[in-house]
Amino acid sequence: MKDIAKKVKEASQELRTAGSEKRIAVLKTLAEKLKSNLCLILEENEKDLRAAKEQNLSAALTDRLVLNESRVEAMAKGILEVAAQEEVLGKIIEEKTRADGLKIQKELIPLGVVAMIFESRPNVVIDSASIAIKSGNAVILKGGKEASHSNKVLTQLVQESLKEQGLSVHCVEQIEARDEVSEVLKLNEYIDVVIPRGGEKLINYVYENATMPVIAHFKGLCHIYVHEDADLEKALPIILNAKVQRPGVCNAMECLLLSTKLPDEFKKKVITELMGHKVELRVSDDLKNFHQGLKLATETDYATEYLDLILSIKTVQNVEEAIEHINQYGSHHTESILAKNPEVIKKFQQGIDCSCLMVNASTRFNDGGELGLGAELGISTSKFHAYGPMGVKELTTARYLVTGSGHIRQ
Amino acid sequence: MKDIAKKVKEASQELRTAGSEKRIAVLKTLAEKLKSNLCLILEENEKDLRAAKEQNLSAALTDRLVLNESRVEAMAKGILEVAAQEEVLGKIIEEKTRADGLKIQKELIPLGVVAMIFESRPNVVIDSASIAIKSGNAVILKGGKEASHSNKVLTQLVQESLKEQGLSVHCVEQIEARDEVSEVLKLNEYIDVVIPRGGEKLINYVYENATMPVIAHFKGLCHIYVHEDADLEKALPIILNAKVQRPGVCNAMECLLLSTKLPDEFKKKVITELMGHKVELRVSDDLKNFHQGLKLATETDYATEYLDLILSIKTVQNVEEAIEHINQYGSHHTESILAKNPEVIKKFQQGIDCSCLMVNASTRFNDGGELGLGAELGISTSKFHAYGPMGVKELTTARYLVTGSGHIRQ
Repeated sequence: MKDIAKKVKEASQELRTAGSEKRIAVLKTLAEKLKSNLCLILEENEKDLRAAKEQNLSAALTDRLVLNESRVEAMAKGILEVAAQEEVLGKIIEEKTRADGLKIQKELIPLGVVAMIFESRPNVVIDSASIAIKSGNAVILKGGKEASHSNKVLTQLVQESLKEQGLSVHCVEQIEARDEVSEVLKLNEYIDVVIPRGGEKLINYVYENATMPVIAHFKGLCHIYVHEDADLEKALPIILNAKVQRPGVCNAMECLLLSTKLPDEFKKKVITELMGHKVELRVSDDLKNFHQGLKLATETDYATEYLDLILSIKTVQNVEEAIEHINQYGSHHTESILAKNPEVIKKFQQGIDCSCLMVNASTRFNDGGELGLGAELGISTSKFHAYGPMGVKELTTARYLVTGSGHIRQ
Repeated sequence: MKDIAKKVKEASQELRTAGSEKRIAVLKTLAEKLKSNLCLILEENEKDLRAAKEQNLSAALTDRLVLNESRVEAMAKGILEVAAQEEVLGKIIEEKTRADGLKIQKELIPLGVVAMIFESRPNVVIDSASIAIKSGNAVILKGGKEASHSNKVLTQLVQESLKEQGLSVHCVEQIEARDEVSEVLKLNEYIDVVIPRGGEKLINYVYENATMPVIAHFKGLCHIYVHEDADLEKALPIILNAKVQRPGVCNAMECLLLSTKLPDEFKKKVITELMGHKVELRVSDDLKNFHQGLKLATETDYATEYLDLILSIKTVQNVEEAIEHINQYGSHHTESILAKNPEVIKKFQQGIDCSCLMVNASTRFNDGGELGLGAELGISTSKFHAYGPMGVKELTTARYLVTGSGHIRQ
């Protein structure tokens, strides 16, 4: 493991000095290879799917494993989108010249070596590799056992693409066995950052054992607050979109906060419509009688990321109370306010600390693709280094370049 | 401890929403208070100095403890410089509008609560508090026992300034006892980042035990590489400045790399001049005979941050060998090249990974003050979140603000 990490570190040096054109050429080659090796990819994926069947993997997990022609095409398209993004390496983001002529610049550079630890979805191999190559970072991929054949063939295609463009195959390496995670987390000499992507258990394990910086997203306990002056015709579709479109993802709404001053008619309509979409509701006391058989929400409900067709609804007196509730139960992921009054909106924006704050829009927009990053490595809910979806730029850092002509310090 | 941290977290919310003017007013009040309470500050400092004497603290450590009129004035001046810096909070650093009208912005916000753990120098209280207040962060200060009276009175003045401007005194809190560090490091619920500033032992302890992100600088094993085409008249003063001006600091040079193609006369002159400045030299084999009694450099020398008037000198065939040596022994702090050929300079810049890379300038410029940040919290040698000197902006992060008019995801 240490030997692999060392080779990746060395390769990262090569990738860092490879020009923009070479890195783009690798990505274009990779996109072609995905298409021309479609049969091979599907064959290998089939092996994983057979094993999944034998092991009675759940339908949801199996679905995340499946590759088919359209999914492979989507991966290839994603690679080309990343390749087409603006070059970030070498970009000067600040520049000044002192009175004595010393020039001070800040330049974007790669982080170095990124370790991705993830479960099931084989597309993470391609997303991570393309973002890493575009940003000049080498990457160590540690996928789940259940996707091992798929991950292997995809990594192999990445390595072939690197080789064809004259770069070291060690720029993208894959490791497999489950017990190697603990070893990876010790190698801070070679690995600059580790990004776990998966369940809470995996993420906690990585946080507790990593000796290098970790970027992770914990959970998305997202709220929508509907203020009394909100455009109620637009509010309902947003509420439904945020809850119903894809309830199992991190940017789905888990708790709806309604101003007590909203018309009863609206509250009733929201409840009826949600129930019509098979959403199980847990509501605060004063909403209990708006529909037959409504359950009361408990403290536990407010603290739960359901990831399912379940929603808590609570009424609040004003925006301050909404902010207080969100600061108590929110997970710094995505929060949304539906309102017209700019003062109220401003108060909400200032009072809430989350990676992406929505105004009159669905929580579902907190996503790399939607926010214009192309592919994403995950969504950071820690404010450190990155906050929100992580793309190419989030795998860089800024160093100082100082240029003098014989300057010495006084 | 947990109660204090909880109060600081609550206060951070208040500071975050306090406007720019209020934060500046606190800093101006503080600068005034330092001047008007000079006698009180010096009295309390005197208590620390007496205790230092009783405990036979070293002269170097005692010197770092001493406050006097000019040092207090320098602190007050530093505060006003920080206050005068451009406002960072609320700054929109990226903005775009999608074809469907959804506006996407990235806005700078404070990190939240910063814990500073430091030794001796009481000025860290003022530097940290002023940078934190300016950037809207609450801060927990954990200073060394040896400076406890000084730290206490300075923190008290900060708290009075906060109170006079209507802000919670808990925005800046101080904790004392040595054993509380381990407790602080567990409170990731309330503390967003911890910054240790002190010896390697302290920093390692924090890295190993912190449950929240850590920004630290380890060591400054800085090199200067003199290429054969360098302006030799300018090279000598830079070499002397980097080694001799303040040998005990992190941006002092610890190893000099000379191109083998440099004239012998120059090599001899460098050696003689350095020895004339009482620098003890450890040199590579081929330099041994340039002066009587020169010691040979060992592997250990190349890996040592002397922090003293000692220097290793090694000859290298070319810039590639210089890069290789630096990548093996450097500490990602500060590296410098003295050269004219732009290709060679570019190669050096691309091949080396450090927080601040100098061209034809002394390594001593890697410093918040010199690089235009005003005060600094320390110099980060990890590439994560910040790389190089940390000022006001380095205590912020960027969140997404998304504004729609009823947008739902397709």
